[in-house]
Amino acid sequence: MKIKPFNPPVRTLMGPGPSDVHPRVLTAMARPTIGHLDPAFIVMMDEIKQMLQYAFQTKNALTIPVSAPGSAGMETCFVNLVEPGEKVIVCANGVFGGRMKENVERAGGVAVMVEDAWGTPVDPNKLEDALKNNKDAKLVAFVHAETSTGVQSDAKKLTEIAHRHGCLVIVDAVTSLGGIALKVDEWEIDAIYSGSQKCLSCTPGLSPISVSERAIEKIKNRKTKVQSWFLDLNLVMGYWGTGKRAYHHTAPINPLYGLHEALAMLQEEGLEKSWARHQHHYVALRSGLEAMGLSLLVKESARLPQLNAVMVPPGVDDAKLRSRLLEEYNLEIGAGLGALAGKIIRIGLMGYGANMKNVMYCLEAIEAVLSDMRAPIQTGVAMNAAQSAAVLN
Amino acid sequence: MKIKPFNPPVRTLMGPGPSDVHPRVLTAMARPTIGHLDPAFIVMMDEIKQMLQYAFQTKNALTIPVSAPGSAGMETCFVNLVEPGEKVIVCANGVFGGRMKENVERAGGVAVMVEDAWGTPVDPNKLEDALKNNKDAKLVAFVHAETSTGVQSDAKKLTEIAHRHGCLVIVDAVTSLGGIALKVDEWEIDAIYSGSQKCLSCTPGLSPISVSERAIEKIKNRKTKVQSWFLDLNLVMGYWGTGKRAYHHTAPINPLYGLHEALAMLQEEGLEKSWARHQHHYVALRSGLEAMGLSLLVKESARLPQLNAVMVPPGVDDAKLRSRLLEEYNLEIGAGLGALAGKIIRIGLMGYGANMKNVMYCLEAIEAVLSDMRAPIQTGVAMNAAQSAAVLN
Repeated sequence: MKIKPFNPPVRTLMGPGPSDVHPRVLTAMARPTIGHLDPAFIVMMDEIKQMLQYAFQTKNALTIPVSAPGSAGMETCFVNLVEPGEKVIVCANGVFGGRMKENVERAGGVAVMVEDAWGTPVDPNKLEDALKNNKDAKLVAFVHAETSTGVQSDAKKLTEIAHRHGCLVIVDAVTSLGGIALKVDEWEIDAIYSGSQKCLSCTPGLSPISVSERAIEKIKNRKTKVQSWFLDLNLVMGYWGTGKRAYHHTAPINPLYGLHEALAMLQEEGLEKSWARHQHHYVALRSGLEAMGLSLLVKESARLPQLNAVMVPPGVDDAKLRSRLLEEYNLEIGAGLGALAGKIIRIGLMGYGANMKNVMYCLEAIEAVLSDMRAPIQTGVAMNAAQSAAVLN
Repeated sequence: MKIKPFNPPVRTLMGPGPSDVHPRVLTAMARPTIGHLDPAFIVMMDEIKQMLQYAFQTKNALTIPVSAPGSAGMETCFVNLVEPGEKVIVCANGVFGGRMKENVERAGGVAVMVEDAWGTPVDPNKLEDALKNNKDAKLVAFVHAETSTGVQSDAKKLTEIAHRHGCLVIVDAVTSLGGIALKVDEWEIDAIYSGSQKCLSCTPGLSPISVSERAIEKIKNRKTKVQSWFLDLNLVMGYWGTGKRAYHHTAPINPLYGLHEALAMLQEEGLEKSWARHQHHYVALRSGLEAMGLSLLVKESARLPQLNAVMVPPGVDDAKLRSRLLEEYNLEIGAGLGALAGKIIRIGLMGYGANMKNVMYCLEAIEAVLSDMRAPIQTGVAMNAAQSAAVLN
């Protein structure tokens, strides 16, 4: 057995995440490890909390990164906020709504599903109806930015409806944080989780969350213990809180260096400018795709700039397209999931990856491979279209 | 708000972990991020599994890193193997036995505690008695290397007793993997978890686990769903298994680069040589400590070479000692926990950190600070003692 050190190929990551990581973040990952209770580390933790509050636009004291990927951030919200027997309205319009249902049920809750077609946003009227028919519901959960379809739902409106019916909300912001407008305090979101590897340009493995005072009250007044010891926020706060820090688990030191650097860069750019940059490059990408004759799955008003679901042209094997892009161009884009498998490809423009170089490279590569696969597209237009979009925008 | 990039101080990590990380591992952490389903990444995952099998000395197919710190590895074993209502014998002789009890209870199990004094190993006779008195027990759980006290228990014997009574065992090997002899197949351990940040010289954040076929049978035949979606091994195996890989959660790509490099280094050195190196430097450290007149908490036969619990000399404020070592020498050592707070300090010699430079530096620094604090120790002996131990050994 002679296994050599692993030297990964250098890819351009334009799938649903992880997205391209900024070199500054990668460099930060390699800084010398220090202890998880080192005074210098605790200063850094406080800075991360402060910068996450900025990213989430909140003053919530409980705004921290969970020491595991986004799925664990989701689970943190559900196992802390759902008590056995409680009814939770789950809005599902893609993969992640289904995962929320699993989380509710495994936490002993009862999930009432509000289903919308994949590729469309959550319908506020359906939520309103579900709440009228389930007056004993305690929580509403929905996905702000569905990574599986590229759809944005109206988080502000859905939260407002939930509150009117006396429910707290849990919001999945894995793909939205840093990429589109998200205002936790202004919209009065109660609990929200995200991922480090999407629009924050950081490596995967951490899940920023933010929990309101109202939600903390519910957690503190639970009748049963949180079923997960690792994700129990009552315990996690002993380490991430404001008083003397007590050991709970050993924090992932170096990945937190990376997150700190990514958040420092977000501050330097400015949150609104980051949102605008995602929009800007989306316009360029869309322009190029449409010039080629490709169309997008989601209607314009509900489209996520950072995750574009593109219809696969007739006769094209999407798996072949994707593997050629990877092998010949080192370009990763995403596949469709579930009912959309084979029907869409997903192009991410997230964080550092939302830049003109990536947009133009992606358009050129797709045009080249599709032409070679004899797909029915317009050729020779991709770069021109992208360039003019860049100038116009 | 102007938060600058974080440049950590360069510490020498000789506490209970994280331990010093090898520069090769840090460098690996900064390699370019690729996708979690990239064919190149899947090759690397397979290599990690193979190298973890070597480290654990097992052929178990389910030998993988959990995408979160050691506490999540512990929780993975308990939530998958404990079904509601099942009785679990938990041997506790330190902090981590107590944490196991929490895990059993939160998984709906009934914990029967076998208590031994902190600083002593688990008594096999007590386990035998507990099993005789609890014929309905399904599982036995114990800690191989108690990080809170520096005690080693006889994992082989405890496993044998458990099996004789028809129980499966769950073993905590967070601090033992790579540091002392551990033979999962030979000792017939059913489920075991460790941490990346101890004797593997890697950064914290990952938890290698290994699960036997017998334990997998139990998991597959559960009557209830595993309560954690994120840690459900039935789902995780869809991603880490041998067939076509399905997305479960987004793996922490760069930390896995680090683990791959750390495991490659373990292979290069050889597992037995790594165990011997830990023993070698422990002898040097012990020699120096004893020459100074300091004594160790744990009796020689049960001592962990990689984690030394040293009695605080009379009249010495251990917090002051530790903070002076950190501030004046950039040297981190650990505090006592629970009933041992203030009574012991913990000196780790783990992974890459188990080297002569660290041993001598630590002895010199402790001697210097204790002398300055007017502690009743012999002075002028530390380095001589360490040097002679190094030569003798």
